Amino acid sequence: MLTLCVRNVLFRSFPSQSSSDAVQLTVRPCSSSRAQEEDLHQTRTLLRLCVDRYFLSPGEANMELFRRGMSCRYGPLGTELRRNLLEQWWHSVSRTTAQVFGINTLSSSSGDTATGAPRKLNIVENEHIKQILEEKEVSKDLLIQKIQVLLQRSPTGRTSCLQGALEQFVPSLELVNRKLPFGLAETGLCFHPGEVTRASLVWFCSARASSQWLDHWTRQRLKWWRKFALSPSDFSSSDVPEEELEKAASRGVRIIYSFPWGRRRWRRCGTEETLSCCGHTEEIAPSCRSCRDGRKSVPHVISVTANVDRGALAFLSNSLQTLKKEDSRQRLQQRKVLKLHPVLAPVKVALDIGRGASVELRQVCEGLLKEFMEAKISTWPGYLETSAEADLFSPEYDEMGVLFTVVVNENTLESGLLQVRSRDTTVRETMHISEIKKFLSRYITAADNV
Amino acid sequence: MLTLCVRNVLFRSFPSQSSSDAVQLTVRPCSSSRAQEEDLHQTRTLLRLCVDRYFLSPGEANMELFRRGMSCRYGPLGTELRRNLLEQWWHSVSRTTAQVFGINTLSSSSGDTATGAPRKLNIVENEHIKQILEEKEVSKDLLIQKIQVLLQRSPTGRTSCLQGALEQFVPSLELVNRKLPFGLAETGLCFHPGEVTRASLVWFCSARASSQWLDHWTRQRLKWWRKFALSPSDFSSSDVPEEELEKAASRGVRIIYSFPWGRRRWRRCGTEETLSCCGHTEEIAPSCRSCRDGRKSVPHVISVTANVDRGALAFLSNSLQTLKKEDSRQRLQQRKVLKLHPVLAPVKVALDIGRGASVELRQVCEGLLKEFMEAKISTWPGYLETSAEADLFSPEYDEMGVLFTVVVNENTLESGLLQVRSRDTTVRETMHISEIKKFLSRYITAADNV
Repeated sequence: MLTLCVRNVLFRSFPSQSSSDAVQLTVRPCSSSRAQEEDLHQTRTLLRLCVDRYFLSPGEANMELFRRGMSCRYGPLGTELRRNLLEQWWHSVSRTTAQVFGINTLSSSSGDTATGAPRKLNIVENEHIKQILEEKEVSKDLLIQKIQVLLQRSPTGRTSCLQGALEQFVPSLELVNRKLPFGLAETGLCFHPGEVTRASLVWFCSARASSQWLDHWTRQRLKWWRKFALSPSDFSSSDVPEEELEKAASRGVRIIYSFPWGRRRWRRCGTEETLSCCGHTEEIAPSCRSCRDGRKSVPHVISVTANVDRGALAFLSNSLQTLKKEDSRQRLQQRKVLKLHPVLAPVKVALDIGRGASVELRQVCEGLLKEFMEAKISTWPGYLETSAEADLFSPEYDEMGVLFTVVVNENTLESGLLQVRSRDTTVRETMHISEIKKFLSRYITAADNV
Repeated sequence: MLTLCVRNVLFRSFPSQSSSDAVQLTVRPCSSSRAQEEDLHQTRTLLRLCVDRYFLSPGEANMELFRRGMSCRYGPLGTELRRNLLEQWWHSVSRTTAQVFGINTLSSSSGDTATGAPRKLNIVENEHIKQILEEKEVSKDLLIQKIQVLLQRSPTGRTSCLQGALEQFVPSLELVNRKLPFGLAETGLCFHPGEVTRASLVWFCSARASSQWLDHWTRQRLKWWRKFALSPSDFSSSDVPEEELEKAASRGVRIIYSFPWGRRRWRRCGTEETLSCCGHTEEIAPSCRSCRDGRKSVPHVISVTANVDRGALAFLSNSLQTLKKEDSRQRLQQRKVLKLHPVLAPVKVALDIGRGASVELRQVCEGLLKEFMEAKISTWPGYLETSAEADLFSPEYDEMGVLFTVVVNENTLESGLLQVRSRDTTVRETMHISEIKKFLSRYITAADNV
């Protein structure tokens, strides 16, 4: 009874989804309702935190989109996290081998190219339909016919980037001197039927080597997800069961994140990235003779597709830690920390003002802000909030995943010394103002190269 | 007669456009048809080059989209140029002051929010319309009514990012301690009614200061466009005539690029970025009491919108130079160089193989490629093309806007010395292999900081 109730709250308006983004829900017999309440509490805590700390715009409908791994309205921190994630994906896929090229195609395409999609979205000009509807002297049958023709001619929203890449296969052959393997990478908006942002690699290789390539990319991609995770083992890969394979696919692998709120009693896994291996498709078959592959074999296609929005949710969920400690009066205090990977963290450093002449301290902060921004270190202007007494280090910054908090106070004006507090160690250090930029840059670069 | 003919070729299927992206065409009496032919030739040269050098995917329809400043299918170089442009825009707008925050909203919105748009795009599920059309026993009137209701409820594609930012005004107030001015930045897909990628800043300020802020942003934005231009004076700003102002706007400024192919006989200007100042809009008026603006005044809105696709076209067109020189046999040779700004150039360095043992040289290239990619220097693997004898320096790289060509040859294996050739000076230097990465990084950073 309670199990159902909890599911109801968590997954209320779950849409019907196509297999690639399917959410796997296995309900196990519940032994303890308290554990479930805790799970529910954890979910609420994460969503609440995302709204309070500017990752997500407020509103029930928006939170629901976010929870379902769809594109939604993001606040400044969510926007930056997503940008960082996209940048890292792009770098890892298109800038580590010479054989991957970035492309950019359209989100909507004319013609009947997307016929395979289960829930096609038509993009029609309101004016055109209106004109048809307003025509007098037209029979019902003719009206239906006219609307059908309009729909046929109107562009449809793409559900993935695969089709666009297949169309670019032939024009791209020249890039690679007609030699396989090579890949085309693209990130962009897709419709599903809501909006999702996908990051896609389409890899063309010989039929003989396709299975090895699928394994290669699975390893690469899983390594990538785990690189940024706080608990890497929460990300895993598993073969797609044969009955769930997309048509034309001979093998498929999913990279899955097991959401912690489902770990105890039931398991809710989201597919972060799907890899599938198709034989030659109709689009590229006619042109395969132009490949210098020797054996006249038809190129196979490996499609690697990540959902960027769901990925952001997975990393947020994975990085949230709740630490309990007693304060000086022996009351139990909860500290929430978003331990996002330094490369993904949307804000690297927050600037605050401690005790001292506020006008002068503010000027010091503005100087530092400018310096940090020029060095492309994302900075939070905490000093603009005049109310705070920042000597206590605001717990907000831990919830925002801010790596370091820098406090400028009267001491700084005298000796140039600042207080620097680390999110991960909670250690406070004293540092000279001339060293701080270099320190931050080095820390971020080092984290990137691990 | 010829004037018309030329216009016909150039602007054949020009769509009707709303004022903000309007292309201003002023036809002047033509005195020389030869000059026009040259103009036409220049246009063709640019488009041909964009297709041949992997900026643009081939196809007449695609070239037409590109020429109209719409999103289209880009090849690897066009994709990278656009990424660089978006990154620079984002950095200059959202990362130079503490008061601008990045947001991310949706490309389609439900409800009647986009009613002001002249050509609304409805996004409807094919299935839903089909169901209505297939219903038997329904009168024509009821059918029309059902379709109208469906259209009303279906989401519409946004034409700009303004609406999304206005909706985020209230949730963002907390970010800035309820103090004006502040801004919300967003980049993303809009529909117009084709696809365009827009970069948008919405700046909220007091009514009193709005005109000064409009001037401030105009200066900032014009400076930005000129920073990356080969001939900065081709970018200019001009007030929008009163009759062309969007409704609710009290003043408007356009940043315009005058395309060189129209410079002689007629003028074709494209609006690269539009700035307009609106009074308070209905969305934010109810919440303006929550601003600590002192005088209870209603915030004004300054909307700054760039078309990223048109911007890419402008910079490509601006940077194309055709240089004539005589070769050793006194034949006139044309050298085309795409002198894109070092920061925008999609490929910073090309790696080629000269004379020598090709297996070993290839290994050296692969090592350098890896080193460059890790340093995030975008590299073209020219050495994969086995056919070329690269001691002659390929003219292709100039047409791709590649900043430097590095040639590895038998000398490199013996002494570690490479040949480095600069696109802009055409000077060839000899450099040690251990110095090349630092040299390139420094060059790019220096160009960024000018």
